Amino acid sequence: MRRVTVRVALIGCGTVGTEVARLLLTNADELTARVGDEVRLVGIAERSTEAERDPVIPRELLTTDWQGLVARSDVVIELIGGVEPARTMILGAMAAGASVVTANKELLGKDGPTLYAAAEAAGVDLYYEAAVGGAIPLIRPVRESLAGDRITRVLGIVNGTTNYVLDQMATTGEDLALAVKQAQAHGYAEADPTADVEGFDAAAKAAILASLAFHTRVSTADVHREGITAVTAEDVAWAAETGHVLKLLAVAERLPGDAGVVARVHPALVPLAHPLAGVRGAFNAVFVEAEAAGPLMFYGQGAGGVPTASAVLGDVMTIARHRVQGGRGPAESRYADLPVLPMAQAVTRYQVRLRVADRPGVLAQVAGAFAAHDVSIETVRQAVAPDGSTGEAADLLVVTHRAKESALAATVGALEGLDAVSAVLSVLRVEGA
Amino acid sequence: MRRVTVRVALIGCGTVGTEVARLLLTNADELTARVGDEVRLVGIAERSTEAERDPVIPRELLTTDWQGLVARSDVVIELIGGVEPARTMILGAMAAGASVVTANKELLGKDGPTLYAAAEAAGVDLYYEAAVGGAIPLIRPVRESLAGDRITRVLGIVNGTTNYVLDQMATTGEDLALAVKQAQAHGYAEADPTADVEGFDAAAKAAILASLAFHTRVSTADVHREGITAVTAEDVAWAAETGHVLKLLAVAERLPGDAGVVARVHPALVPLAHPLAGVRGAFNAVFVEAEAAGPLMFYGQGAGGVPTASAVLGDVMTIARHRVQGGRGPAESRYADLPVLPMAQAVTRYQVRLRVADRPGVLAQVAGAFAAHDVSIETVRQAVAPDGSTGEAADLLVVTHRAKESALAATVGALEGLDAVSAVLSVLRVEGA
Repeated sequence: MRRVTVRVALIGCGTVGTEVARLLLTNADELTARVGDEVRLVGIAERSTEAERDPVIPRELLTTDWQGLVARSDVVIELIGGVEPARTMILGAMAAGASVVTANKELLGKDGPTLYAAAEAAGVDLYYEAAVGGAIPLIRPVRESLAGDRITRVLGIVNGTTNYVLDQMATTGEDLALAVKQAQAHGYAEADPTADVEGFDAAAKAAILASLAFHTRVSTADVHREGITAVTAEDVAWAAETGHVLKLLAVAERLPGDAGVVARVHPALVPLAHPLAGVRGAFNAVFVEAEAAGPLMFYGQGAGGVPTASAVLGDVMTIARHRVQGGRGPAESRYADLPVLPMAQAVTRYQVRLRVADRPGVLAQVAGAFAAHDVSIETVRQAVAPDGSTGEAADLLVVTHRAKESALAATVGALEGLDAVSAVLSVLRVEGA
Repeated sequence: MRRVTVRVALIGCGTVGTEVARLLLTNADELTARVGDEVRLVGIAERSTEAERDPVIPRELLTTDWQGLVARSDVVIELIGGVEPARTMILGAMAAGASVVTANKELLGKDGPTLYAAAEAAGVDLYYEAAVGGAIPLIRPVRESLAGDRITRVLGIVNGTTNYVLDQMATTGEDLALAVKQAQAHGYAEADPTADVEGFDAAAKAAILASLAFHTRVSTADVHREGITAVTAEDVAWAAETGHVLKLLAVAERLPGDAGVVARVHPALVPLAHPLAGVRGAFNAVFVEAEAAGPLMFYGQGAGGVPTASAVLGDVMTIARHRVQGGRGPAESRYADLPVLPMAQAVTRYQVRLRVADRPGVLAQVAGAFAAHDVSIETVRQAVAPDGSTGEAADLLVVTHRAKESALAATVGALEGLDAVSAVLSVLRVEGA
């Protein structure tokens, strides 16, 4: 039998990279037994070979010459993140005939098609299980297990930082700033939490999931993005009061009749009975709805060096098998080429909280504003604020049936113009009902 | 570019088979677009071509000559279930050069190695995503996504019928017989529910999962099996009283130090905070713990024609890609070859409910019986029965730390021999704590 050594190169030796190296080095015999041939870490490219590192990293594997390293590798793992120089390195590795494993959601979300085209041209594999949902097997199920089905919607808690923050707010009643500080203290948030709390990280993941799920190119720029920075302790308390929990969701959905695809990231009310409602702390979970399979959920740790390394290694093993047995992973599938629609075309349910004058006839005016824009009301209730205060005014909580985002926006505009409405206190989308 | 038609044969046209045929026929263009070449259903083998069938099934595809059909096919989908003639047909298809997709957990659990060996000898693929967890992507994540990790434990709700029955008992307080009747009325249980309620179905799935997770051959005969027939309404009420829910679990675990593997199916107490506790009705979910990935959960519909067909089609698509692009799926991985240990070697936690005489010194005697067998007690509480009755006796609820099954069994024997103990009312394992 032909003996093959699968030479693995690592570019980037930070938190995840160190754990990937540790697994490759300490489990080498076991990985080799599973593939049938040797899987060997042949080098680690970093900006400096002198920096202090975990003792598991053998100094002799370190190099600053990434080009020399990829030239003698079968699989290149890119873990430096960001668009450049990661893109140049990945394209260089592919051009040199190496398959690539990456966890780089930023690059994939922004410029995935360039990477796919390069992989296709070079006849190599491109795997990126770790780019979405950390350790959770998600990319493989969506692009392989569900390859015979039609996915209609993906609802994901794909950012552990914001899930921790919102969970903390719900559990303690803290406001956002304090919950973010807690997340930083526990290592769940960066010193600069912008990428997480503003939804940039989730938007890149939404683009990746939408592209795979709908066989259509969706880039991060196509994703409507709202972070959690406007979420108040009052919003969180009202969510609980109405049987929901507030989550930052990445939503990708195909509109009926294949009219198009919408991808969006925003805080949303999730009913307590929905499986996503129970996802606590920094965990991630992705809920997938497919025509035949029905509802599916994938749950696990969405970040952290060790869990993410598990996903990276799974991809390395698949590519190693291909090197030994032949074959290739799935290429980019974009045959459906559905229109990628703006947020105004999204259709969902809404909970609108209004402060109105407490006098007869107000409800009729409010209902009239919804009706005038074809937004159908499911329920209205007089909302006694959690602190009990209403004064001369009353708060109304209106939940709509499914309506188009543009119609809801016009309704809100009309409500703000009514004399009887002193303020639109909050507008939240309701998902997973 | 070379054009390939991937010829698909279906053996068995029952509930799942009909839905598989429907998807292959109605989504043919889409499936072809995804594979890059034509995927065509070329025939359906059944015992009779005359029986009444769903109108989606074209009569001209039906044949009673399965051998003739597999001879002109690239992929054979076996959906008749049971050991024979399914095994003969699968081996015949492989010998004829076809890859096989099956949902046959009974055959895989009993004689998987024969199928693997035949696939290896013929150089064809063997896929069986639908055999465990219905629509839930589970086999592919375990054998591919986690290929670079070490799985330590699998806890699965893999039988929707028993989950529905136990959920019904918990919700309504009904006893087992009535809940089974409800399940039958809703189509969740067969007229003869033996395979489900006695745990045979779950045991086959436990064997399949254990084999994959631990790279070791585990057959259904190796699985310790207890069904739910001994579960009483009182057990279910006590589970709730102590913050648990009672589930039929398929457990596969690797003992520390690679001492061996234990696979077991039995009712178990799951803490309410555990993700498996929220799995309601006929849904399935499998909780996987791996060294690097940590806890993962996969959730969805575990049965039903349409969901199961989704999993079958995913496998067909993977094999079709292999036919077009080359390559093969993972072969049987049994390099670890760990000892498969009997139930006596299992280690878990227990909740033991005792009826004892209500007099001083009894607790000391009971505690002594546990200590004598090295079973460490975590908590003891005086248990007031849900109906409030105790009479002259008292009920004790003892929860142990992790202990060996054999030690617990010896403890129970000793307890039954104590004068002060009038009855050991129940012994339940506690999992997922």
